[in-house]
Amino acid sequence: MKLFELAGKDDANVFSPYCWRIRMALAHKNMIADCLPWRFTEKDVIRESGQGAVPVLKSGERLIHDSWDIACYLDDTYPDRPLLFEGETARAQTLFFKHWAEQTIHPAMVKIIIMDVFNALHDKDKEYFRASREARFGMPLEEFEDKSESQVEHLGKLLSPARAVLKDRSFLCGSKPGFADYILFAVFQWARCVSETSLLQPTDPLYFWRDRVLRLYDGLALKAPGHQV
Amino acid sequence: MKLFELAGKDDANVFSPYCWRIRMALAHKNMIADCLPWRFTEKDVIRESGQGAVPVLKSGERLIHDSWDIACYLDDTYPDRPLLFEGETARAQTLFFKHWAEQTIHPAMVKIIIMDVFNALHDKDKEYFRASREARFGMPLEEFEDKSESQVEHLGKLLSPARAVLKDRSFLCGSKPGFADYILFAVFQWARCVSETSLLQPTDPLYFWRDRVLRLYDGLALKAPGHQV
Repeated sequence: MKLFELAGKDDANVFSPYCWRIRMALAHKNMIADCLPWRFTEKDVIRESGQGAVPVLKSGERLIHDSWDIACYLDDTYPDRPLLFEGETARAQTLFFKHWAEQTIHPAMVKIIIMDVFNALHDKDKEYFRASREARFGMPLEEFEDKSESQVEHLGKLLSPARAVLKDRSFLCGSKPGFADYILFAVFQWARCVSETSLLQPTDPLYFWRDRVLRLYDGLALKAPGHQV
Repeated sequence: MKLFELAGKDDANVFSPYCWRIRMALAHKNMIADCLPWRFTEKDVIRESGQGAVPVLKSGERLIHDSWDIACYLDDTYPDRPLLFEGETARAQTLFFKHWAEQTIHPAMVKIIIMDVFNALHDKDKEYFRASREARFGMPLEEFEDKSESQVEHLGKLLSPARAVLKDRSFLCGSKPGFADYILFAVFQWARCVSETSLLQPTDPLYFWRDRVLRLYDGLALKAPGHQV
C-alpha cells in the first residue's frame, strides 16, 4: 500500500491532521504503507483519485481518498486486524465526532497555528496556500492569526466534552484507543509538528491523554519531527 | 421498579429531558417502571437519593439517580435485554455526546422554550423555578427567552454534526437506536411537551429521525401529551 501525504519543506515534515488520522490508523491495524510526500500544488499526482486532496491510499489498483473512507475501508477490508471502530454504533458515533471536531476544534486550532502552518510549507506551496486561505478567511493570514491566551482558553472550553470522557478513561474510545482518538489527536499533532505554542496544561486530562497517544506504537507520533509542547 | 419524574400541572405532564432519556431507555430494554410524579419543591421525597433532582430510579431497595448512571445501571444489571450501549467504546462515545448535548444543545433550546417550560409547571413550582433560573441567567425569564427565527437557526447549526450522521443512517447509533438517540431526542421531546414552536423543517434529516423516534415502542413519546411540531 502507498499513502500520499501532505509534506512541508522536507519530505519527513508531515503535519496534516487528516494524514495523521491515517498514520495512526495504519499503526493501530499493524499495517505499513509507503509514504509518498505530496504538496498542495501537485494536484496532477493524485488526479486519478478524482479529487485534489490527501490523504489518498493506494491499495493494489484501488485508490481511496478522504480519511473517513480510508478508515472504513481498512476496517471493512481487514476485519481480523484490530478494529478502528468497535462496531456499527461506534462507527456512527465516530462520524458524529469527526464532524464535531472539524466544525468546532479545527477552526479554533487553525486560528492559533495558521502562520506556523504557513511557515512549515514547502516554498512551492506558499503562494497557493496564502491565496486560497486568505480567500476563505476574508483577510490576510497575519490578521487572521490569534495566538492570544483567550483563544487558547476558547479552544480549551470547546474541548470540554472530550475532557469529561477522559476523567475516568484512558482514551476517548474507552480503555483502548480507536479512530475517534486519532481524529482529535491528529489536531494536536498538526500543532505539535509546526508550532511551539503551548495548548494544554499538565493539569488537564487531555494533556495526559495526548501524551498516551504520542507514545502509542513505539512512539510513532512522538518521533515525528515536532516541538515539545 | 419505580421512577421519580418531574411532572407539571397534572401528573401526566412529564417533560424533563433527563426523565425522557430514561422513559425511552426503559422502553428500549422492554422494562416497565411505575412513574411517580414529582415536583421541584418536593425535595424531601427524594432526599434518600442523596440529592435533589430527578430522574431517580428505585430498583428494589436501591436508589439510583442521574440519568447517565441509571442508563449504565440498566445495561450492567440487565445485559441480556437490548443494550443501550453497543459496548465499551459506544459507552465512552455516548458520554462525550451527553456532555456535548448538555453544553451546546440544551442551552440553545432552553432560550427558545423557557417561558413554555415555566407555563407548564405545577403552580407550586413556579416561584422556585423563576427564582433559581433568573439567578442562573442573570435576568428575568421573559428577557432571557428568544423565540426568534435566528435563534432557531442557531440551534439548527449547532445540530449539524448529528445531521451529518443521519444523512445515511436511520439513527445516531446506526440502524438501531441507542442511548445517544434518546439523549438528543429527549431535548426535542422536552420542547414538544410544552411548546408549539416549530424547530425542524421537513427537509431536515433530523425531522425524519425525530419522527422515527416518536413512533418507537408503540408510539410511547408520540402518545404523551404534547404539541404537533
